[in-house]
This record gives sequence, C-alpha cells and structure tokens, in this order.
Amino acid sequence: MKKIVILGATGSIGTSTLDIIRRFPDQFQVVGLTAKSSDEKLEFLIKQFHPSLVALQDERSATNLRKRLSHSGTEVLSGEKGILEVARHSEADLVISAIVGAAGLLPTLSAIQAKKLVAIANKEPLVMAGEIIQREAALNGVSILPIDSEHSAIFQVLNGEEHRTIKKIILTASGGPLLRFSKEMKENVSPEEALAHPNWEMGPKISIDSATLMNKGLEIIEAKWLFDLPAKKIDVVIHPQSIIHSMVEFVDRSVVAQLGLPDMRTPISYVLHYPHRAAISLPSLDLTEVGTLTFEKPDTDAFPLLKTAYAALEGGGTLPAVLNAANEEAVTAFLEKRISFGMINHVIQQTLEAHIPQVTKTLDDVLEADRWARLEGKRWIKQSPVC
Amino acid sequence: MKKIVILGATGSIGTSTLDIIRRFPDQFQVVGLTAKSSDEKLEFLIKQFHPSLVALQDERSATNLRKRLSHSGTEVLSGEKGILEVARHSEADLVISAIVGAAGLLPTLSAIQAKKLVAIANKEPLVMAGEIIQREAALNGVSILPIDSEHSAIFQVLNGEEHRTIKKIILTASGGPLLRFSKEMKENVSPEEALAHPNWEMGPKISIDSATLMNKGLEIIEAKWLFDLPAKKIDVVIHPQSIIHSMVEFVDRSVVAQLGLPDMRTPISYVLHYPHRAAISLPSLDLTEVGTLTFEKPDTDAFPLLKTAYAALEGGGTLPAVLNAANEEAVTAFLEKRISFGMINHVIQQTLEAHIPQVTKTLDDVLEADRWARLEGKRWIKQSPVC
Repeated sequence: MKKIVILGATGSIGTSTLDIIRRFPDQFQVVGLTAKSSDEKLEFLIKQFHPSLVALQDERSATNLRKRLSHSGTEVLSGEKGILEVARHSEADLVISAIVGAAGLLPTLSAIQAKKLVAIANKEPLVMAGEIIQREAALNGVSILPIDSEHSAIFQVLNGEEHRTIKKIILTASGGPLLRFSKEMKENVSPEEALAHPNWEMGPKISIDSATLMNKGLEIIEAKWLFDLPAKKIDVVIHPQSIIHSMVEFVDRSVVAQLGLPDMRTPISYVLHYPHRAAISLPSLDLTEVGTLTFEKPDTDAFPLLKTAYAALEGGGTLPAVLNAANEEAVTAFLEKRISFGMINHVIQQTLEAHIPQVTKTLDDVLEADRWARLEGKRWIKQSPVC
Repeated sequence: MKKIVILGATGSIGTSTLDIIRRFPDQFQVVGLTAKSSDEKLEFLIKQFHPSLVALQDERSATNLRKRLSHSGTEVLSGEKGILEVARHSEADLVISAIVGAAGLLPTLSAIQAKKLVAIANKEPLVMAGEIIQREAALNGVSILPIDSEHSAIFQVLNGEEHRTIKKIILTASGGPLLRFSKEMKENVSPEEALAHPNWEMGPKISIDSATLMNKGLEIIEAKWLFDLPAKKIDVVIHPQSIIHSMVEFVDRSVVAQLGLPDMRTPISYVLHYPHRAAISLPSLDLTEVGTLTFEKPDTDAFPLLKTAYAALEGGGTLPAVLNAANEEAVTAFLEKRISFGMINHVIQQTLEAHIPQVTKTLDDVLEADRWARLEGKRWIKQSPVC
C-alpha cells in the first residue's frame, strides 16, 4: 500500500490524482490532503478517502471544517504551518505537490527535507528555487518526479537511458489560444478569450501562461533543474495539436517522443505507479483520427516572454524568481481585469529591468527576490492603463 | 574492443555498418565478412578492415579473390559452408546478419548456435522460422537485436519498460511509391517506378516489398517473434513522411515513439553500441523543417498483401515461410520483367491457396515449405501473362 499526500487536493491536478487513486483501492491510501480555502470540497474528499491529516491555508475555512468534522478520525490543521506539517506527514511514501504558484515552494521543500519522494506538478517552486530544491533532494537522498505533461514525457523517454547521451530535449508548446492572433489583436483580448485553451483544460493561471507562452518559459527553467541541462540543450517547438508532449534527441540522432491525448491522468498515473506502469481505462490515442501533426518555430517577436525566460535561465541567480513573481502578479491583475493582456509582458519586462540580480545561496535570498518582485510588479500594474 | 562479423558486407546494410565502424577505430574490430559474389568489393573491404576470415557464396568469385590475396592474413572460404563458418567465427562478439532474403536463415542460426549476440537486419529468417530462431536463442542464452528501422524503434522505446505493460505496438509504413496509385494504375507499373521509394534508399527486393506493402506484412511477423506479441497487439499505420519509425502504446495510454531522418546508420549504431548510445555526426531531425506529419489507416483493398500477412501470422506453422518464399519468387520475376506488378499478389495468393499448412517443429519443416513454395510460385509465374 503506497501512502499518498496531496498538496493542493481540490485543484485540477489534485482532482485528477484522486480520480486515479480511486481506481486502485488496493494500491494507494490517501493519508494527507491540503487546500487553500475550499472547506466544503475538502470535507467531501475526507469522507471519501479518510486521510489522517488535512490542512486548510485559510484559518476561517479550517474552523468551519473542524466544527463539521468533530467526530471524524481526521485531524484538521490550518495556516502555512499546517500545510507544511501535512507535507512532511510521517506516514507518507509519496507527496504530490500541486499547489498553484509560488505558494508551493515551502511545502515542497518541507516534504523533501522529511525525505519523501515528491512528484511535482507546479512548476513555480523549481523555477524560483531549482538549485536549492535539487541540493536539498540530493542531501536527503530523494527523487523528484515530474507531473507536468512535457516533463513527464522527457522523464518517461529518459527511463533506461544515460544522461550523457542526451543531445537536447525539445519541449512542445501548443502556442495557446492566441497563436494566430496578430500583436495588435492580442493587446486587448479578454480573460475569457485568453482562457480558451485549444487542447487542455487547466486552471486559470496556467491557461493565461499558455496564452503568453510564459508557461513554456517557466518549463524550460523547470527542465533545467529536473534534468540537469544547460539552456542550449533545451529547445521549444510549436506543435498546435499537443499530441507529442515532448522529445529527446540523443547523440546518435535518434529522437524519442512521448505522445498521448491531452489528459493529465496518464502522467499522474505514471508517477503514482513509478517505476511501473499500470493499466488505466482511458481513451487511446488514434493518430489516424488526429490525421495531421504540425510543427513550427516559436515566433519570439509575437511571444517575447519566451526569449525573456531563456535570458532569466541563462542569467540565473534571482532572475527566474523575479520573472516568476512578476508574472504571477501580472496574470492575477489581468484575470481581475486590472490590466490589459498586452500589459502582462510590459509589467514583467519593467520589473526585470529594475532588478539587480543576486546569487541565491539560501531560501531567504529567493523569498526576498520574490517579495521585491511582487511589490515592483504591483507598482507597474498600478501605473498601467486600466482596460 | 568489440569484434564484429558482417554477413552480407557488400549490401546496403553492410556498407552502412562499415561506415559506422570506420568512425570508431578504437571500439570495433572487423573479424569476418561475407558476400555473395562481389569479390572485388570484398577485396577492397579486406584491405581496409583486415578481417581474419571472409567467405564468398560463389565458388568462382572465391577462387578469384584467393589468387589476388595470396599474401594477406585473411583466409578466404567459399560456398554455404564457408558463410556458416564465418557466422560462427570464434572471435566474434557481435554478428550483423544482413544477407538479403531466405539465404540469411542458416547463417543466422549458425551464429546463434555459436552463442553470438546477433543483430538482425534481414527480416526473412524471422518470418520463416521465428519460433525456431527464438527457441535456439533461448537455449543458447543469446539476444537478438533488431536493425530494421521500425523494429529498432520499438526496441529503443521498450528499453527500461516491462513487457506486460505493452498495450500494442504500432508499426509505421510510408505506403511506398505507389500509395496514391489506383488499383488499375498499379497493375502495370514498371520495376523502375516501383523501385522509386519516396524516403529510403534500399536494396531492390525491399523496395518492391514497400511498393506492395508486403514489407510491412513481413515486419508484423518479424515483430511477433522479436517482441513476443500476438497479431492483435501489432498495428500498422500509414505515415508517408517516414519520420516516426514506430511506436508503442502502453497500458496507461502513454505512447512512446522513436523518430529520425531516414538513415539506417542510427539503428545500426544503436546495435553496435548497445546497451549504450554513441555520438555520431549525422544530420539532426528538425521537425519545424519537416513541418507536417500525417497518418492514415492502411487500405487493405488497395494493398491486399498486408491482410494476407496478418492471416499467415495468425495461421502460423508453415504459412509465413510459404508467404515469404512465394513473395521472393514473385518479386524476382517482376524485377526481371517476367511478370507484371499486379501479378505479384496473384502468384502469392495462388501459392498460399495451394498450400496445406503444417506445423514447423524442425528447421527441415521450414526449409521443405520454402522449397515447395518456390516451385509452386514459379509454376504460377510461368502461367502469368508476360508483361
């Protein structure tokens, strides 16, 4: 029986993870769950999976839940401290780290320091503090498994291969809902338009990141830390059908790719059963039905944030954390209709320009950069014309 | 130093193998070579690679070569017996089996019985006698590595995976030069037209097999024996660009594919360096240059031999050997302009209809079926209208 903790259990990845776990009652036991403030959703999950420990970030939601669950065998913790405690749950064999955004960083580190195997679905912790996370993972002798479909593809392909034989990895990008929009058309698209991802159903933050291609920018930084590769060995190709999830070119010119229908349950099942695969009843990819797969070079004029992310990756230090924080602030402001779509790029570029890069020796260096970038980003957001 | 024997050294695969070996003078030593009758080509190779043992199938060619090589350190054998002796060369670590057609069967078995690791490029031995070859390989504790691009793709993808997790394998087929020809147009195409493969430069036999899709038919039978899979777990998809070389669908709906430019030197390098990969300087696949990959279901009305091959695979026993022998006779007759293209199918169907299937307990059962089918095939060829 593999004992599982899910950080961010009520989100999109958390829900898909529980869908897989539900299919293998003899193999998995949920021992811990966390959520931000969805106490009703969490209550529903507690009644189904009976975890011994849960936590809600929001204190009031936790109080509500405690009242309703007074006779259950589940302990309800709260706040950041509660989340960290669930992350290092003494019984856990595998921690699924699926808290959206920078908020996932400390819980992920907490799980690693408790020597837990961690499967990571949120890219922000690795973008912000990849070096620190991998150092802690090495110190504690634990592995980090990727869930993101692109990184899962690379991870699956590299299974059984030697690291030194990687010539490069090629991350595929759908190009998002605005791929064929001109620069002018993009300036003022609404959140609704930018959220309409052609292939994947995802949370709002990652959907907007897909529309700006920042999602791919964060993924190249994530890939650097997951697979220990320099920027020049990480390529991006636009592949609007999202069928090839990513590829590895080896030094003998053999290219190996992982493909599938856009369904996160396959990469989630992969990490749950790792190092094995298990049969799951999902629709099969039929390439004769898809018919055509296309590939094109990314247009970095139309999507400047991809180039910005490469620069942050090569610059290193606090740059990726600043990039990430400014992006989170800008995307939130856009979703709340406080800035236009075109201003997302502007806010990020201005924040990066104002930043004096530092090395990141400790977690505090990262958190300080993150804090600074959010303030700076907010300043630029306030100065942006309201849409 | 890995010591290599190449059976069929002057053919297309032999030449590509030597091209790779030449790039790694510190890693490989050629200890044996064979050819059918090209004594001048073989002499050229002897002077370059200094094998201790060579053989020519043709006695007169061998006599010619012996005269010219009198002072060399290379022993020249001849005839079938000579080829078999090179195949079990006492020093060999790896035998590349690349003799075209049924003639490759006995040398392949000879190498296996001498406990050599065998890399197999000719599909006919496995088609004719897959059960016997795998039984001998198991008895002698040796592995058989595939070179054929499709099977190499599957083999590379399965590296590190568990056999029980294969849902199915999907062999890709270019469809050959006649993919868009109507049935009527195909009836009377010339050997020159049928030889014009769109993507691969190959020998004449395999090029005609591509034009009839029999090549894919032989490959599904080959795949059964290489990967121990039933017919229903082996699919074929038409993929005219020949960029995806083949795929595996796993039980968790993850599909992993191997891709590359059409260059046999990559799969040859893979078996030479197996279980490692080595850097070779060849052009890289750039999917943004290829642009588009397409996929369609094979039209078994237009290409009846694919259906015939599935039936032979499911029927088992002597049927695959008979299919293969009738096909070899028909293709030879077509290349020599003794029958029309449309008659290739006719000759094979008539031969199979006249055959009473037997089980194949011994190699003699296979060889007897092969002999019978060649006579029967020739009978139908004689009766066919001359083109």
